[in-house]
Amino acid sequence: MYLHVQRLINEIIPDEPDPAAANALQEGLGGQFGEMRTMMQYLFQSINFRGPAGKPYKDLLQGIGTEEISHVELIGTTISRLLDGSPRYQGKKTDPLDQPGAGGKTPLEIATHQSNIHHYLVAAQGALPVDAAGNPWSGSYVYNSGNLVLDLLYNLMLESTGRLQKCRIYEMTDNKTARSTISYLIVRDQAHENAYAKALETLGVDWKKTLPIPKTNAEQFPEVKKLLDLGLQSKQYSFDLTSQSEAGKIFRGMSPSNDGTELDATEQAPAGVPMTIAEERFEEFAPGADPELLALIQATADIEMAEVQPVYGPIPPAS
Amino acid sequence: MYLHVQRLINEIIPDEPDPAAANALQEGLGGQFGEMRTMMQYLFQSINFRGPAGKPYKDLLQGIGTEEISHVELIGTTISRLLDGSPRYQGKKTDPLDQPGAGGKTPLEIATHQSNIHHYLVAAQGALPVDAAGNPWSGSYVYNSGNLVLDLLYNLMLESTGRLQKCRIYEMTDNKTARSTISYLIVRDQAHENAYAKALETLGVDWKKTLPIPKTNAEQFPEVKKLLDLGLQSKQYSFDLTSQSEAGKIFRGMSPSNDGTELDATEQAPAGVPMTIAEERFEEFAPGADPELLALIQATADIEMAEVQPVYGPIPPAS
Amino acid sequence: MYLHVQRLINEIIPDEPDPAAANALQEGLGGQFGEMRTMMQYLFQSINFRGPAGKPYKDLLQGIGTEEISHVELIGTTISRLLDGSPRYQGKKTDPLDQPGAGGKTPLEIATHQSNIHHYLVAAQGALPVDAAGNPWSGSYVYNSGNLVLDLLYNLMLESTGRLQKCRIYEMTDNKTARSTISYLIVRDQAHENAYAKALETLGVDWKKTLPIPKTNAEQFPEVKKLLDLGLQSKQYSFDLTSQSEAGKIFRGMSPSNDGTELDATEQAPAGVPMTIAEERFEEFAPGADPELLALIQATADIEMAEVQPVYGPIPPAS
Amino acid sequence: MYLHVQRLINEIIPDEPDPAAANALQEGLGGQFGEMRTMMQYLFQSINFRGPAGKPYKDLLQGIGTEEISHVELIGTTISRLLDGSPRYQGKKTDPLDQPGAGGKTPLEIATHQSNIHHYLVAAQGALPVDAAGNPWSGSYVYNSGNLVLDLLYNLMLESTGRLQKCRIYEMTDNKTARSTISYLIVRDQAHENAYAKALETLGVDWKKTLPIPKTNAEQFPEVKKLLDLGLQSKQYSFDLTSQSEAGKIFRGMSPSNDGTELDATEQAPAGVPMTIAEERFEEFAPGADPELLALIQATADIEMAEVQPVYGPIPPAS
Amino acid sequence: MYLHVQRLINEIIPDEPDPAAANALQEGLGGQFGEMRTMMQYLFQSINFRGPAGKPYKDLLQGIGTEEISHVELIGTTISRLLDGSPRYQGKKTDPLDQPGAGGKTPLEIATHQSNIHHYLVAAQGALPVDAAGNPWSGSYVYNSGNLVLDLLYNLMLESTGRLQKCRIYEMTDNKTARSTISYLIVRDQAHENAYAKALETLGVDWKKTLPIPKTNAEQFPEVKKLLDLGLQSKQYSFDLTSQSEAGKIFRGMSPSNDGTELDATEQAPAGVPMTIAEERFEEFAPGADPELLALIQATADIEMAEVQPVYGPIPPAS
Amino acid sequence: MYLHVQRLINEIIPDEPDPAAANALQEGLGGQFGEMRTMMQYLFQSINFRGPAGKPYKDLLQGIGTEEISHVELIGTTISRLLDGSPRYQGKKTDPLDQPGAGGKTPLEIATHQSNIHHYLVAAQGALPVDAAGNPWSGSYVYNSGNLVLDLLYNLMLESTGRLQKCRIYEMTDNKTARSTISYLIVRDQAHENAYAKALETLGVDWKKTLPIPKTNAEQFPEVKKLLDLGLQSKQYSFDLTSQSEAGKIFRGMSPSNDGTELDATEQAPAGVPMTIAEERFEEFAPGADPELLALIQATADIEMAEVQPVYGPIPPAS
Repeated sequence: MYLHVQRLINEIIPDEPDPAAANALQEGLGGQFGEMRTMMQYLFQSINFRGPAGKPYKDLLQGIGTEEISHVELIGTTISRLLDGSPRYQGKKTDPLDQPGAGGKTPLEIATHQSNIHHYLVAAQGALPVDAAGNPWSGSYVYNSGNLVLDLLYNLMLESTGRLQKCRIYEMTDNKTARSTISYLIVRDQAHENAYAKALETLGVDWKKTLPIPKTNAEQFPEVKKLLDLGLQSKQYSFDLTSQSEAGKIFRGMSPSNDGTELDATEQAPAGVPMTIAEERFEEFAPGADPELLALIQATADIEMAEVQPVYGPIPPAS
Repeated sequence: MYLHVQRLINEIIPDEPDPAAANALQEGLGGQFGEMRTMMQYLFQSINFRGPAGKPYKDLLQGIGTEEISHVELIGTTISRLLDGSPRYQGKKTDPLDQPGAGGKTPLEIATHQSNIHHYLVAAQGALPVDAAGNPWSGSYVYNSGNLVLDLLYNLMLESTGRLQKCRIYEMTDNKTARSTISYLIVRDQAHENAYAKALETLGVDWKKTLPIPKTNAEQFPEVKKLLDLGLQSKQYSFDLTSQSEAGKIFRGMSPSNDGTELDATEQAPAGVPMTIAEERFEEFAPGADPELLALIQATADIEMAEVQPVYGPIPPAS
Repeated sequence: MYLHVQRLINEIIPDEPDPAAANALQEGLGGQFGEMRTMMQYLFQSINFRGPAGKPYKDLLQGIGTEEISHVELIGTTISRLLDGSPRYQGKKTDPLDQPGAGGKTPLEIATHQSNIHHYLVAAQGALPVDAAGNPWSGSYVYNSGNLVLDLLYNLMLESTGRLQKCRIYEMTDNKTARSTISYLIVRDQAHENAYAKALETLGVDWKKTLPIPKTNAEQFPEVKKLLDLGLQSKQYSFDLTSQSEAGKIFRGMSPSNDGTELDATEQAPAGVPMTIAEERFEEFAPGADPELLALIQATADIEMAEVQPVYGPIPPAS
Repeated sequence: MYLHVQRLINEIIPDEPDPAAANALQEGLGGQFGEMRTMMQYLFQSINFRGPAGKPYKDLLQGIGTEEISHVELIGTTISRLLDGSPRYQGKKTDPLDQPGAGGKTPLEIATHQSNIHHYLVAAQGALPVDAAGNPWSGSYVYNSGNLVLDLLYNLMLESTGRLQKCRIYEMTDNKTARSTISYLIVRDQAHENAYAKALETLGVDWKKTLPIPKTNAEQFPEVKKLLDLGLQSKQYSFDLTSQSEAGKIFRGMSPSNDGTELDATEQAPAGVPMTIAEERFEEFAPGADPELLALIQATADIEMAEVQPVYGPIPPAS
Repeated sequence: MYLHVQRLINEIIPDEPDPAAANALQEGLGGQFGEMRTMMQYLFQSINFRGPAGKPYKDLLQGIGTEEISHVELIGTTISRLLDGSPRYQGKKTDPLDQPGAGGKTPLEIATHQSNIHHYLVAAQGALPVDAAGNPWSGSYVYNSGNLVLDLLYNLMLESTGRLQKCRIYEMTDNKTARSTISYLIVRDQAHENAYAKALETLGVDWKKTLPIPKTNAEQFPEVKKLLDLGLQSKQYSFDLTSQSEAGKIFRGMSPSNDGTELDATEQAPAGVPMTIAEERFEEFAPGADPELLALIQATADIEMAEVQPVYGPIPPAS
Repeated sequence: MYLHVQRLINEIIPDEPDPAAANALQEGLGGQFGEMRTMMQYLFQSINFRGPAGKPYKDLLQGIGTEEISHVELIGTTISRLLDGSPRYQGKKTDPLDQPGAGGKTPLEIATHQSNIHHYLVAAQGALPVDAAGNPWSGSYVYNSGNLVLDLLYNLMLESTGRLQKCRIYEMTDNKTARSTISYLIVRDQAHENAYAKALETLGVDWKKTLPIPKTNAEQFPEVKKLLDLGLQSKQYSFDLTSQSEAGKIFRGMSPSNDGTELDATEQAPAGVPMTIAEERFEEFAPGADPELLALIQATADIEMAEVQPVYGPIPPAS
């Protein structure tokens, strides 16, 4: 069972809209080696896991898989912000039913020149479950052989490829919004690479100096370096509300990345940052409310609500 | 951000393996109107949501979307249990490296007669991200127009179709394992149908006697009736750890399903039931451990672990 | 612009339900060489046609393309009839809201043993836009190079392959419902094969004794022979309401199939046979009406209707 | 059974070639919510329809489905015209076998800069069965649950989404060719939205002020406004040659779109406008005729043709 | 550049037709981890290879990739033989145009009960480029990141997964035809696993006792054991006609599979076995020759042929 | 069984990088009518061939199929060269671990403006198994009906369409690298068109003046003309190491292309040209070697290798 926190797992730095960067980031969301894939792969491997003695391995998969859902949320939100407002249309904010095409104007003309016209035509300046070349995400991407060594080996390759692609995306754009998320994911992919490499070490492989794969100079990327200095590549959160995760039995000891850090699995979750809600976009008819609908929406927003009984939740300050 | 609880959202009743039922359930997992789709659709609608005044609608989408991840876990696990052991192969449990095909035997012969040979050949008697006809899940299923009324209308149709298909699956098998999950999802789909119908009511639609769609006699299904008697079709959990969800501003008042119940959004999450780990299947080489690997796995299991610092978690009994 | 006649282009002989035959026929509907494909291919070739001097060729494509829409209707209806009632469920016809699964019964159990479970789970015992192996129809099937000789050559190959596959389907089932449609389409495919072969003859190819391709003994199939005796393989209707089609400039002279018949394009359309509407299937919740919905449907059926002003229509008997 | 009229359902206004607009329009042809999809969805729903009492509903589906085939023809032709001549290649019209690439020239160089290179490389400056992002149309788009309320609800959502996307496309281009068709389809989509909304009204839903969905200011688009002033959004033709359609029992009374008009189903079909045949494009080798082939084509065009016996056709002026 | 030898790379043992086994083997031909995929992946990796110093690695990829083409040929032929004659139709061999469906008979009735009806309906009792669940092979399977370590790691995982799946297929059937090829490929997959593991060893990884992955008891399969006894898992041929391959710089030393053998790359190619041509199948109209066509085919067969000038070829016995 | 020669089948002329041309060429590699498709289609037709008397036809398919593998190699290498270095990034060649993105630079910024971002993001400036619109190659392209006449007819159409598309690509770019391969393939496609046309002639078709299809003025393309003057369109190599091919019984006599040449099948293989290995691209982390990895790679390159025993190979000069 899963619960949600109304916080993003990492901060997204504001910058100008940038649809080209948004499209490049789609690979990290809906690509073969993107976050939807890692998420689904680890959730399936966890669901289908075999061998009671292997609980630490299952817990590792479950924990990383849970983190990947937050990554889907993070990169999806980032893409949405990069697209939002890119047509530079300035509707009258005071008029709830603006007239974007009145008189035959073409406020969405930009759409026909971009990498993926669907960002405007289908998704209302939002993220899509597709890769950077427009291919829809496919269930055929998920690998789950049932064989423990193979699944771990695949996962190591998967995280490394994800990191490789994100390093390439980093080199494609200097938009700060794009880079804040890309850099964070480069570092977290390395943490997961470490996790699977370590799991394979417990099963007998000695990686010696081969890791990290790829042998990038990622630490030369300034935004990445800041996060490496915080040791974020060597931390793995449990994301487990019931304190039953045994992933820490694997994610411990010296990092297989040969960077001299020690792996640390003693935190449940990062603090995260608050979420916001995007503005209306009249030219997309999104959400498409006219004055009457708007009044109804406002009426709902004004309702007082019954209290919710928490079962799980933040430990009170006093504890 | 998401956290995980090592509990299943509903109990799976034990019964005999049943690969035909397992395959029918795949539609509910990886089909166009299955749980992977509802999950992804609501997560994307939540990520791309527009209009700050509409927070209750976003929170409703986010809450149901979060629940759907747990449904993916539930139905995936159910499929896995229905497949597990279906070849009836009895390997020597004492020998960690069993000899399933020794002497030319064919312990997996069953696979060639089943609906989806991939359940044995690819997934090691586990769930797959495909539908009941074997089509991989596709990102092209996700609908997110950005227009609030349309998104809600689609979601209402989606949940109703999901429920319709699950009623048909109910009629295809009387395996108790399959039915415990199918019946639970029939009822939860109705809760979500109520949620979206109610949201559309706040925007002006009067459904009168049209709901529930389909006008099934689902209450005639004994397993479903038990859950309806508990009022599970009229409850919506927040699944929110930070108590910020405003979904309860929508999910309130009389049920649009015309069953005389009142909608209730005052619970954070159901209690759930403990999870277990499946046994090895030698004939699938899953997890494929020989004595040496097994010793290494056991060594990892025996390690003592550092304590994890909770940020979120169960409120201590004393509070 | 297109108009519809509430008549099927050929009669469907009644017989027992036969889901295996229904599934084989799906290849003829949604397969790579099925009717949806021929329909779409010829409509696109007609829409994109180049060269004003080539009007007879465009008209030939348009006429055959129009016929193919009726073939989609015919084979879709045939598949629907072969599936309809195959679960042998006998709901109480007097109760508009029957109780197919009451008490835990499994009236749709048959679905898990059939070639395509979607016939019951998704399509309510109806036809699907997929092939006999369950692959959805794809726009990538459509061939339209713009080069006249190539397009005609492809079409000749397409019709011949369609006919080849239908001959194989004929050999797979002796269900009369299935065979009445398959036999009709075998003969019509040959008519279209003749049409494209003849068009290529006007452009210089001499087929000599190569046609028909395949060199089948289709005339040995009794149901096919009856239609051949009527000369149906050598007729092409214009399906044109405005009497502007010049297809008859191509479809004339001796048949390239070497059967001694003369090609004839002097009829506008066949007479066809009346259409019927299928019965409710309670176990599919289709159409899913309860007594209240049923009363509303009946109320609509009872309304008196304004007269429609015909622009096109049957020539009055007196003319 | 279907017949064709050699007339387009609406006029296409001439303007300059515009491949960017052509590509945007592909969404309306081969997209998930485009005309190929509405056409196929309604034809399948009509073929698989259940419940003899529901004939007016079946006839409504059949009538709109038939209109959609004409929409496929209209938007396909529009795309073809927008592409035609866009490379601005001026071959010698007097030479039937022009030399577009002679001396190493690159008359198709434009193709590598456009949204979909296939428009030039595969389709010879013609329409393709794909969406604006290049995805081929898929049979998996078709929704036909068999449940009447669900099918109507989906259709309402489908038409509304189609209209939403076309409003967005309107905002992307001011090419007159593109807009004449887009504006017409915006209005016809609303007519179909009205039809399905009305059908759901007969089954008990009260839409109040929610319609039209989306609440667009489409009437602010000048080209659309002209058609709304003609009341085209409140008319539904029967497209039925046999005067058996009962769709008028549903499509009547006040428009659910709250625009004060009355729905009218008393016309069989619009008048339409004459069709033309596109010119040769030498640089595409389409149709690719050299002098010898051209002479053969002309010979066919010169043949005198036998008269066709009409069964259906325009009522003689005298009647 | 490639050349062909009219010999199969390994012998196929004759046995009864077995369509269920044929379908299981399709995974090894057209599946995600089958021979078409390994072939294409290594050919692309070889074509796109970077780094002149890495020639031994490129040559290793090229050599294994070339072998995989022969594996496609081998497993395709095996599937074809398993299907061939499975309908048990006994046409009159003396009549070149047999009458398989005459009198309404159904010689292909078997097709509707098999895993993939396309084997009879589309492929004329031959192999298809699809997997065992009927999914067509896809270019999206090919992995080629350009990063040497990642590509090798993926290839190791790919070969191991291929071997894992073939071990499972072995357990599904005891048909000798199927097993002769499956067993051969199990052993060759291990040879390739060794090759990639060894290549990674040269780059620093120490596999210790983790290999072979999976830790199967494949040597318990009698047909496999025979080939292991011949050391076939430790041999890699160059398949290079120009003696320029440097793959032997990697494929040498002790096997990483811990079986005590030494890797050997000193042979160019195995001897192979002669190929045969399958018989006609009248019921499939394949090749579909009637007496006239047959005479023409025979006339071609009787022609005397000009001598071909060899550039490459078997070294004359005397050398 | 297949063997490889470390030579390209034709020379690739050097020119500037040109990613737009590279993308256009993808159609010729991974498109529906590209080299991967012809290769796979002919290999499957050869594997599944029926009818012992038809060996010359099988050998013709096998020989052309073998040539197509070399064409995949040729066009893949050409695409790779057109992409290679297109970002114009000048890393320090002396530093094995260059710093392409150091200081936040964007050396891959070009990628977001190209037709297929995957060329940089996924393929490291290399070829992909996709078409020019980015669609992955699909097994559903392969046509193999088993009927000899149909298979040959399809192949004729396939080669002609491939040639048509390549003529269009020729008109899209004047890059010399692109054109050297495109021109070669235009001529070889015509050779194959001749082969299948001739095979159909042996079965009774008289093509008269219809061929070549398309009736292009390809001889007006200077690069093509040079190859036509060498008669390359009328030669077919056996690509057979065992001198058993009987393709020469078909590929003989006057060319059906009406160019006055005589078909010639007396050569085994063309001479080809040497292959080279591409340089490292630091900005792609390909191959991604740091100094330590580089040293290990070099160590492998320095190893002395055991001699390989040839079975097949160039005939010694003395013979």
